[in-house]
Amino acid sequence: MAESGATNDDAGVPVPVPPLALRGATAGTWFASLRDRICAALEALEDALPDPPPSEPAGRFERREWVRPGGGGGVMAVMRGRVFEKVGVNISTVWGAFSADFRAQIPGAAEDGAFWASGISVVAHPRSPKVPAVHMNTRHIVTSRAWFGGGADLTPMWAAAPARDTADFHAALKAACARSDPGYYPRFKQWCDEYFFLPHRGETRGVGGIFYDHLDSGDFERDFAFTRDVGEAFLAIYPELVRRHLGQSWTAAEREHQLVRRGRYAEFNLLYDRGTQFGLRTGGNIEAILMSMPPEARWP
Amino acid sequence: MAESGATNDDAGVPVPVPPLALRGATAGTWFASLRDRICAALEALEDALPDPPPSEPAGRFERREWVRPGGGGGVMAVMRGRVFEKVGVNISTVWGAFSADFRAQIPGAAEDGAFWASGISVVAHPRSPKVPAVHMNTRHIVTSRAWFGGGADLTPMWAAAPARDTADFHAALKAACARSDPGYYPRFKQWCDEYFFLPHRGETRGVGGIFYDHLDSGDFERDFAFTRDVGEAFLAIYPELVRRHLGQSWTAAEREHQLVRRGRYAEFNLLYDRGTQFGLRTGGNIEAILMSMPPEARWP
Repeated sequence: MAESGATNDDAGVPVPVPPLALRGATAGTWFASLRDRICAALEALEDALPDPPPSEPAGRFERREWVRPGGGGGVMAVMRGRVFEKVGVNISTVWGAFSADFRAQIPGAAEDGAFWASGISVVAHPRSPKVPAVHMNTRHIVTSRAWFGGGADLTPMWAAAPARDTADFHAALKAACARSDPGYYPRFKQWCDEYFFLPHRGETRGVGGIFYDHLDSGDFERDFAFTRDVGEAFLAIYPELVRRHLGQSWTAAEREHQLVRRGRYAEFNLLYDRGTQFGLRTGGNIEAILMSMPPEARWP
Repeated sequence: MAESGATNDDAGVPVPVPPLALRGATAGTWFASLRDRICAALEALEDALPDPPPSEPAGRFERREWVRPGGGGGVMAVMRGRVFEKVGVNISTVWGAFSADFRAQIPGAAEDGAFWASGISVVAHPRSPKVPAVHMNTRHIVTSRAWFGGGADLTPMWAAAPARDTADFHAALKAACARSDPGYYPRFKQWCDEYFFLPHRGETRGVGGIFYDHLDSGDFERDFAFTRDVGEAFLAIYPELVRRHLGQSWTAAEREHQLVRRGRYAEFNLLYDRGTQFGLRTGGNIEAILMSMPPEARWP
């Protein structure tokens, strides 16, 4: 990987490659701006609900900053509204040293455990069982190496969820992948299916999407562009999927199905999710880490 | 540890020590008879609810047998009633070989991983936030060694839970310990406090009780008697605690508090509980393993 001060002359013209810290700042700035646009898009959906009950005002994000004792911190943005029962959009930039037992698991961290990490994470739990839940996360991690990771995946909570929702979600991510490398989509889709899998139940968490990690092609700009494309694809498709089902009513049985599916969602996050484990092990903010937990779930 | 065919002549008279398999059968028979008495006591509480709404019949346990592909099986008894929103009383007797990565963690299993295990597990989630949730589990495990483990702990779900409930629960367990060894209670109480702890939140799951594991004093009958005493203590005190609060009404805010506490309960079980991990790793019955999960929980 090119280090600070090296140059990238693919185009024949020497282009300064930013040092690692500057690259991180660049990624962090992007995550914050993406957060602003995602929050605005989801608030617009709160406003777009047809015939809202007068007792239910449109939700608005509330932001809360938190500081990580070991270094860095973040901003949690949470909205509890009439379309979204709970949705969190968190950004964080943290640094420090991994605990000894965690180092072996992280590329480039074995020696001194020093790390720097920045990312954005979105988890939406809509009120309506007809609106799919969604998760999107992208991150940039720097140890003695540096890479991007992330992805987006959809979890329908309605037994009769239309196949079109799934197809359109995947198509958006596939198009984002194609801009960087046509090989990414089949590879990252499979990775997602394997990752969001509950072995104890023999079932996937939802209908998948893409998942990637340790992405370091040797070209920071290229990998960063891909990560931005994933964010843009999410921002374009998810609000569209929500809009399709706004104003549809649901039955008590459909709500019950949703709450049971949310139980499986909680099982995955606590038993298997790498991001949750990463957060808990690095002393991240508990509320931010567990923002992904469903507002209500059932194990009947 | 005495092997099959050895004798125990503490009393001056040679007493045949049952071989491991027979000891296991003895423990298994006890767990099943304790299960019957616990189920009867909890069904009696369903009948004892004062002024029950006519639309809510008294709950009754439903039993379902399950077979473990690798060897053994169990019986799940579940009741969804008007006092108990969900309560499970499971017994299981399973055997086989631990997976390679699990062997190192289990005493006496390193060589071939062969194990035999039998136990009873109770988790009660009452409807009323004023009635504490409870967990009791005792088990006998045989590898190339053999031991008992288990305990009982209480989880009040009411912010204003009376200190007397906690005191009486602990007193019952302390008395059970005292019959075997006065040193057990302080040791096993502390173990419980350490075990049922959520490090990411810096809080205990509930108000504790006792927890013990790898109990092998060298005297099977003595250790088995202690384990029976734990079961008897649970059976005597928990229904009494429930009875105290039967018929008390509760507010929506108290229910909300209960549902949030139940979320913490779910976090503990999925993130940290050894029994859950044991079950998932040994291919136990998913419904039986996750019977401990709360029927409804919130992460607001």
